[in-house]
Amino acid sequence: MSTLSPLAAAFRKTSYIVGGHGRKNIQILKDALDGIDGKLENDMYGNGESIESFQAEMAAYLGKEKAVFFPSGTMAQQIALRIWCDEKGIRKVAYHPLSHLEIHEEDGLKELHHIETVLLGEKNHLIRLSEILELREEIACLLIELPQREIGGELPPFEELVAISEHCRAKGIKLHLDGARLYEVLPYYQKSAAELCALFDSVYISFYKGIGGVAGAILAGDEAFTVKSKVWKRRHGGDLISLYPYYLSASYYFKQREPKMGKYYEEAVELASLYNRCHLVTTLPRVPVTNMFHVHIAMPKEKLEPILVGLYAETDVGLIHYLRESSEGVCSFEVSIGDAFAQIPKDKLKLTFERLAAMLK
Amino acid sequence: MSTLSPLAAAFRKTSYIVGGHGRKNIQILKDALDGIDGKLENDMYGNGESIESFQAEMAAYLGKEKAVFFPSGTMAQQIALRIWCDEKGIRKVAYHPLSHLEIHEEDGLKELHHIETVLLGEKNHLIRLSEILELREEIACLLIELPQREIGGELPPFEELVAISEHCRAKGIKLHLDGARLYEVLPYYQKSAAELCALFDSVYISFYKGIGGVAGAILAGDEAFTVKSKVWKRRHGGDLISLYPYYLSASYYFKQREPKMGKYYEEAVELASLYNRCHLVTTLPRVPVTNMFHVHIAMPKEKLEPILVGLYAETDVGLIHYLRESSEGVCSFEVSIGDAFAQIPKDKLKLTFERLAAMLK
Repeated sequence: MSTLSPLAAAFRKTSYIVGGHGRKNIQILKDALDGIDGKLENDMYGNGESIESFQAEMAAYLGKEKAVFFPSGTMAQQIALRIWCDEKGIRKVAYHPLSHLEIHEEDGLKELHHIETVLLGEKNHLIRLSEILELREEIACLLIELPQREIGGELPPFEELVAISEHCRAKGIKLHLDGARLYEVLPYYQKSAAELCALFDSVYISFYKGIGGVAGAILAGDEAFTVKSKVWKRRHGGDLISLYPYYLSASYYFKQREPKMGKYYEEAVELASLYNRCHLVTTLPRVPVTNMFHVHIAMPKEKLEPILVGLYAETDVGLIHYLRESSEGVCSFEVSIGDAFAQIPKDKLKLTFERLAAMLK
Repeated sequence: MSTLSPLAAAFRKTSYIVGGHGRKNIQILKDALDGIDGKLENDMYGNGESIESFQAEMAAYLGKEKAVFFPSGTMAQQIALRIWCDEKGIRKVAYHPLSHLEIHEEDGLKELHHIETVLLGEKNHLIRLSEILELREEIACLLIELPQREIGGELPPFEELVAISEHCRAKGIKLHLDGARLYEVLPYYQKSAAELCALFDSVYISFYKGIGGVAGAILAGDEAFTVKSKVWKRRHGGDLISLYPYYLSASYYFKQREPKMGKYYEEAVELASLYNRCHLVTTLPRVPVTNMFHVHIAMPKEKLEPILVGLYAETDVGLIHYLRESSEGVCSFEVSIGDAFAQIPKDKLKLTFERLAAMLK
């Protein structure tokens, strides 16, 4: 069992936190279940009224023919790419070098599905249309992540997505959306989920990131695609006898928070501007385009950590519970705005950033 | 959305049911969470005090060095076999022709892991020691399922298991236990879980069959094995951000029901004898060796179904909600005893079987 770092311990003691929807604990599930009659029948291996109606609701939201609930996005996305590779008879897909599949999944796509990957573009920027147009290798599928999390949640202009989609369709390349944070990009694009998803052949969305559910994912596409995805779901061991703890909580928090994504986005812009006023601090993007962004502070961890510990104790506001040393002498962390931000009294927030600015001088 | 069969509808209306732990609905999870403080921290990708302590408890119970919680047995067992194949450098395993992996998993083992299988023994009997001794093909691992569910939950004598284990160790063949219903065999063998598991290199147990939890599984073995299993769990998409709905309910029902397995077993023997007194009815095994058995009734489905519908309406006791036509003119179904059986007043049960016997004459 791991012990807390001094920063995490100080963070835990604060009354207010800047990111997320509040402390993570099992109350999240208890709250979601409280309003549901215990006599509701559980799902059985993907069948049953409650799972089927949630899937139908999500299919409609995404503007796709069908949607299938999965325990995880890792499983859903590998399966999506496998189906497209099988369909095209090409064992190769392309995605950004910092795609979740490349850096967080222990190479499941390669080890389980023997699919080769083309890393498109550079680590520090989005995949560009020109890079897609110049691609000479034959691929079955291109995966686009919106927003691109590992570079602070950046987004291409909508017109560029349209051009990418048109190119892929013309070339017979399937286009898959890693939409773990799909809801969070809609306010910037001023589009519905269905309008955005219409550019893609298949879409994955997550329920514990922006939505703050317990876990779980939806994979959506046309009927033939989703039928195949259920076979692979069973092969992966994801066709659990019951998935209701996940989709019931997903549904509960989706209804609460999907309509608030515009508010979270505006608050992220506000918070980023507070950070950017501090010496040594920059955010990526400078002006967020979703509810998330990255913060870079040009100070070594051993110097910054005690400053933050002191700040939390003084202000009772917790900014972040960890620091990553992204490069020599530079710390970084990710911020994702949810319900917690609006709980902080405005004067407390103002004071916190005044004190931070003073401490970093 | 599927509509109920007349038999399932009649079954649902009865006040008493013979098998399982009661009606399946989401109250199962609500009950398990009710006594737990909402402030309990969730697990994060397999880490956290609550998941680690449950895993340690299960490792101790099974007498293994380490245990890892998985969302499903399908995932856990494929991974166990893959690890043993990689270790031995042999892509072949052996199991019974009616193993879960062979008939219920859409060939995940073959499609994802490219492992060949040797089907050992015949569909209608347990794998015999002689069949193992005669095996000429080189295999990495032998999987033994206790009890063998698809043939009514039969068990080999303990001495035969010891001989199988000794043979495998001598030959360098890894021995894996499909112990989905492990608890349920202990009263017959009069052994602890650890004594039985000592014969095996790796063990899987389930929490929704005999235990009646929501879903989930444990895979146990030595430390090196379980470390590898966590890597594969992530590759499969089973390393969910939070698995607590499953392991908290698993822990809750394990504590309640593991000590009752002897009682369930005795009740299964009692119930099987009631069935066997009816004309046209036989159970497999004739005398159960666990809490489960199969019932065969030599009557076509279209004749038997209305008889059962009438019986349920008359007695208010539901025997089963489905009938499988296992062969021409013979219906069969599975019975698994849990908490529900003891709820039926003895005179009601007696009357039910008297009426059934009369109806089948």
